[in-house]
Amino acid sequence: MTVRKVIFDTDPGVDDAMALMFLARRPELELIGVSTVLGNAGIEQVTRNALFLRDRIGFDAPVAQGSGVTLAGISGNEALHVHGRNGLGDIAVPEGAAGPLDERRGHRMIIDLVRAHPHEVTIIAVGRLTNLARALEKDPEIARLVREVVVMGGAFGTHGHTGNVSPVAEANLFGDPDAADIVFTAPWPVTIVGLDVSQEVVMDEGFLRCLGESGGEDGRFLRDVSRFYQEFHRRSRGLDGIFAHDSLAVAFAVRPELFTLRRGPVRVVSNGLAVGQSIQKPEGAPFPPGGAWDAHPAQSVATGIDTSGFLRLYAETFIR
Amino acid sequence: MTVRKVIFDTDPGVDDAMALMFLARRPELELIGVSTVLGNAGIEQVTRNALFLRDRIGFDAPVAQGSGVTLAGISGNEALHVHGRNGLGDIAVPEGAAGPLDERRGHRMIIDLVRAHPHEVTIIAVGRLTNLARALEKDPEIARLVREVVVMGGAFGTHGHTGNVSPVAEANLFGDPDAADIVFTAPWPVTIVGLDVSQEVVMDEGFLRCLGESGGEDGRFLRDVSRFYQEFHRRSRGLDGIFAHDSLAVAFAVRPELFTLRRGPVRVVSNGLAVGQSIQKPEGAPFPPGGAWDAHPAQSVATGIDTSGFLRLYAETFIR
Repeated sequence: MTVRKVIFDTDPGVDDAMALMFLARRPELELIGVSTVLGNAGIEQVTRNALFLRDRIGFDAPVAQGSGVTLAGISGNEALHVHGRNGLGDIAVPEGAAGPLDERRGHRMIIDLVRAHPHEVTIIAVGRLTNLARALEKDPEIARLVREVVVMGGAFGTHGHTGNVSPVAEANLFGDPDAADIVFTAPWPVTIVGLDVSQEVVMDEGFLRCLGESGGEDGRFLRDVSRFYQEFHRRSRGLDGIFAHDSLAVAFAVRPELFTLRRGPVRVVSNGLAVGQSIQKPEGAPFPPGGAWDAHPAQSVATGIDTSGFLRLYAETFIR
Repeated sequence: MTVRKVIFDTDPGVDDAMALMFLARRPELELIGVSTVLGNAGIEQVTRNALFLRDRIGFDAPVAQGSGVTLAGISGNEALHVHGRNGLGDIAVPEGAAGPLDERRGHRMIIDLVRAHPHEVTIIAVGRLTNLARALEKDPEIARLVREVVVMGGAFGTHGHTGNVSPVAEANLFGDPDAADIVFTAPWPVTIVGLDVSQEVVMDEGFLRCLGESGGEDGRFLRDVSRFYQEFHRRSRGLDGIFAHDSLAVAFAVRPELFTLRRGPVRVVSNGLAVGQSIQKPEGAPFPPGGAWDAHPAQSVATGIDTSGFLRLYAETFIR
C-alpha cells in the first residue's frame, strides 16, 4: 500500500474533528502537519481545539496557527451557532494541557512541508482557503510541487445543493472568496468536494449511536462531540442526523472511486449578490469563448457519491 | 371562459415568433399590444419582424417599438448566430409591406394599456426586461394595476439547467440584468419561466415535421421559421430539435396547472462573474436573515413542467 503524506488545513469545528480522527486512523494516509484557519470559531479557539485534538487522537504531526483574518483583512463571521461556543460542540476542552504549537505561521509550514517532500504531499483543506492562498502568494512554485489538493467547500447546484449561507454560497468559500478563487485557478490539481456530495450523505441518529456504542473510546468521542451539531441540524433543517462535510474530503483521498467527478475551470464570485458562489464551466459546455473561465486550469468537482460506500468506510474505520 | 388581456413584450426571434403565433390562436388570451425590445436582433430589425408577424398572423393589436439599449445604455450583443441575420431564421421578410407602427415608445404603450384596463392585463415578457423596467420607473403605480407578469428568462439550476450564455446566466437576463432585478423586486406578481422548464421540453424533428405537414399554412410557417434555429441546436448541443423557450411563458398563461412553482424573492446579479444570474431565496430556506433577498416580495419560479401536456397543447392549437 502506498501511503500518502497529508497536510490537514482546518478550523475545528465539529465535522473537522470527526474528519481529523477519521484521517488519523486511516493507514493509507500519513498526517505530516495541521494548519489552522479562522472559520467555525476564531483563530485562537480553533488552534486550541487542534492542539487538544492532537492529544486526544494521539498523532505527533506539528500543529501551526494560520490566518486569523481573510485575505481582505476581515475577522469574525464564526459559525458558533453551528459548532458551539468553543467550536467543538461545547464539550470540555481542558485548558493548557495540550502539547506545543509549531512556531511557524500556517502558510509557512505548508510551504516548508511541500518543499521537504516534493510531489508527495496531498493537502486536504476543509475550512476557508486563506492559508493555501497565502502559501501560493509567498511561494507560487509550490503549485508544481504539491501532489493534489482536496477541498471541502462550495456548492455547484448538483442534486439541488446550491448553498448553506446564502441561496448560492457555501460557508467555507463565502468566508474568504478571494482566497478560494486563487486556490482554484492555480496550476495544481484540485478536487472540490462540496455540498453537492456532502449533503447527499446523512449520518443519522442510528449511525451515530452505533459509533458511540461500538466504536470504543474514539466512537464515544465522535458521539459526544457531534451532539450540539446534531441539534443544529435538527433545528435548522428538521434533519435526524448530521452532514459529515469535512470527512467527505478525507474519504476522497482514501477512496476516490466512491466519487463521480466533473472537469472544468472553477471560479469563485468575490462580491455582490452571489458572493462566495463557486461556478464551474464544465469542459465542452457550449458557452461563448472569452469568458472569465477561459485560460484557467480544469479542476475536478465532485458531483456524485456512493453514499453507503462512504458510510461503510467511515464506520469500519472505528468499528473493527 | 374568461379571456385574459395580454401584452406581449418580445424581441422576435424565432421562438418569439412561434410563441406569438401560439398566443394569437389561443381563445383564452386576447392580444392587446406588442412591444419590442433589442435582443435576438437589433431594435429596428425586431420591430420590423413584429410588424411582419402581425400581417402574417393577422391580429390587429398595436405594435410599439421599445428600447434599443439596455438600462445601462448598451446596444448590441444580438443573438444572430441563434436566430439568423434577420432574427427570423433568415426566412424572407418583405420590405415595407407591413402595417403601421404605433407612435408611442414601447414602455409608454404598456403604461397606457395597463391604465386603460386596471387589474385586467397580463404581461408576457419573453426578451430582455428593459421595457418593463422603464415602465415601472416612469409610472411605479402600474405594479398595483397589472394582473400578472409572466417572464421567460433566467435559470435557477433545477434539473441541472444553470445558464445558456455563461455557466450561470440565461440570455434574456444577461442582456439587461439591472432591468430584470427591477422587474422581479417590484410589487406585482411575477412568474418566471426559465431554462429550468424550457430546456426540459424539446420540440423534436418529428414534432416539427408533423406541425409543418398537418398544421396548415401556420404550421408550414412554424416549420420554415424554425429551420435555422434547429440547425443551431443541432450544431451547438447535438439536439435533434429545438427548445421552444418563449412558448412556455404563453403556455403558463393558458394552463398554469402544467407547471410546478416555487415561491420566494428573486434577485439578479448585476455584474462580476455571475452577471445575469437569477437567484431565488426559497420561502422557508434556512439562511441567515438580513440578506439581499429580504424585504422583497416573493415571486414564483417554475421548477417543473408537464412536458407532454405542453407539447399536446401546442400541437392542438395548430392541428385540428
